[in-house]
Amino acid sequence: MIVQQVVAGIDIGGTNTAFGLVDENGQIIFSNSVKTNDFSTADEMVAAVSREILSNLPPGITLAGVGIGAPNGNFYTGTIEDAPNLKWKGIIPLSKLFAENLNCKAILTNDANAATLGEMIFGGARGMKNFLVITLGTGLGSGIVVNGELVYGHDGFAGEIGHVIAIPDGRACGCGRKGCVETYCSANGIKKTYYEKKNIQPEAAPYISSQQIFQQAVAGDEASIDTFNYTGKILGLVLANSVAYTSPEAIFLFGGPTKAGNLLFDPTIKSFEENLLFIYKNKVKILPSQLDENNAAILGAASLIWNLTSEKNNMATSPVIK
Amino acid sequence: MIVQQVVAGIDIGGTNTAFGLVDENGQIIFSNSVKTNDFSTADEMVAAVSREILSNLPPGITLAGVGIGAPNGNFYTGTIEDAPNLKWKGIIPLSKLFAENLNCKAILTNDANAATLGEMIFGGARGMKNFLVITLGTGLGSGIVVNGELVYGHDGFAGEIGHVIAIPDGRACGCGRKGCVETYCSANGIKKTYYEKKNIQPEAAPYISSQQIFQQAVAGDEASIDTFNYTGKILGLVLANSVAYTSPEAIFLFGGPTKAGNLLFDPTIKSFEENLLFIYKNKVKILPSQLDENNAAILGAASLIWNLTSEKNNMATSPVIK
Repeated sequence: MIVQQVVAGIDIGGTNTAFGLVDENGQIIFSNSVKTNDFSTADEMVAAVSREILSNLPPGITLAGVGIGAPNGNFYTGTIEDAPNLKWKGIIPLSKLFAENLNCKAILTNDANAATLGEMIFGGARGMKNFLVITLGTGLGSGIVVNGELVYGHDGFAGEIGHVIAIPDGRACGCGRKGCVETYCSANGIKKTYYEKKNIQPEAAPYISSQQIFQQAVAGDEASIDTFNYTGKILGLVLANSVAYTSPEAIFLFGGPTKAGNLLFDPTIKSFEENLLFIYKNKVKILPSQLDENNAAILGAASLIWNLTSEKNNMATSPVIK
Repeated sequence: MIVQQVVAGIDIGGTNTAFGLVDENGQIIFSNSVKTNDFSTADEMVAAVSREILSNLPPGITLAGVGIGAPNGNFYTGTIEDAPNLKWKGIIPLSKLFAENLNCKAILTNDANAATLGEMIFGGARGMKNFLVITLGTGLGSGIVVNGELVYGHDGFAGEIGHVIAIPDGRACGCGRKGCVETYCSANGIKKTYYEKKNIQPEAAPYISSQQIFQQAVAGDEASIDTFNYTGKILGLVLANSVAYTSPEAIFLFGGPTKAGNLLFDPTIKSFEENLLFIYKNKVKILPSQLDENNAAILGAASLIWNLTSEKNNMATSPVIK
């Protein structure tokens, strides 16, 4: 098939902003990244990224739109608002800025929602109408798909499973409350559990990554193995509770900590099945994401636009800017 | 406006089966009920109820369909399966039976989902696209509406918030697990809390209804007041967690225990706001249902059909039998 249209996918992170051009088969025909905080304003970043995208658009191919994943991104307004990891404060109309600079339609959402659409359009959730994606990184993000549509909710901020309280009065969370699943099951949460198991005060602890804890677990270190068992126990409980809301066909786990493989998946699935209501038992798959982690952010962002062309699209409610 | 079409609404309960004819404005033009267990088979019940519905259909008015709310009712299959409170065992194709007997289309779901559609079509959620309904009775049921559509999930069993585990390793629940919110916040849960507060063994306890506990609380009985405070504390926590899934505009509470009014709503809203993630605070209303409790079950069931005529309907995925 001759590619005549491509979509720009842009993933704005606290450190890097990755961007690329994606065809309808999920092939990335160009990609690059910039340091987000090299730009003192969002306008400058958008202008620079847009110039590079346009100069890499192959001749004869049109830009069908731009999808943007951004921390705290609001689908309904196309803006980001006081994102904690970005230095641009206030309300930033990213969607409008990209639409103007690239002269095409633009859609924005948060990074976890973009990853979820990526899984649906190009990953393991192809053909699924009801599923969840859990993104495990510094934090714990999520996206919820119901009837083939991403759930945005009344205000655009649906799908914050990371801030479901798993343990009432549990660990302090960065959100100001206690016991959120993010404080247990994100990469940072895994580290906290490890320090607890080792009886080390975090402030006195040498740096360790969740990847190193995984390697220690593989080498037989008991505290590291216990850490993954505890992580899976909490994650499985919260995912079992999550099923009672939207009864998904599958739950995909995405991000660095999933590289621990069975060390993470086995205790998660065990706790999940133990805690599931009987009507859901042995029905809901817990699967690793099938998106290549290096490309997932760009693919996910691009999926915001490619999703519009799929059979059941969000046109009715989506605020396409342009 | 001249009414030309009506819908039959049927609510099958463990004790009574209520049924009626509902016009598009939510007026019940006929209603009656039978004892569910007077019928040794579902076929006999359906035949008897259908005869009475047809004989009460006013001349010149056609039956646009029949909506059925039933315990464990599955929207996708139109069947009930081993419902614990009914004596008819096995898989019963209620939707098909009613469609044949009434010669019209039939849609079935569980009672909480029917109540939720009733709230959307005829109650306080008119015009809302994203909301939850929590039904408080012997158990705790729920319905979830996203983008104006009831969430059925992959298998038809979405929306079982009553079986979200609120307190890990908490009270034993009838589902075989521990700590479900139903064991704390249903009418039965309220009684259990009261017995705890009074230090009474439930098996040795005199019968008391949640209504009586409410009356005692109004009269100043401390254990009864504490009971409602504890109920609200748990319910508020679970509802706050629920918001993180679908970010609803409002949560409606329905059923007997809501008659306690502020005694229940005040501690629920307090706990809810305390436990909400900051992005949701002071945005989500907790409201009493605006359906008349006596008619709610019939209205809710009829809404399954009237919903089809609303602007954004479920026709694409609904298994209308006929």
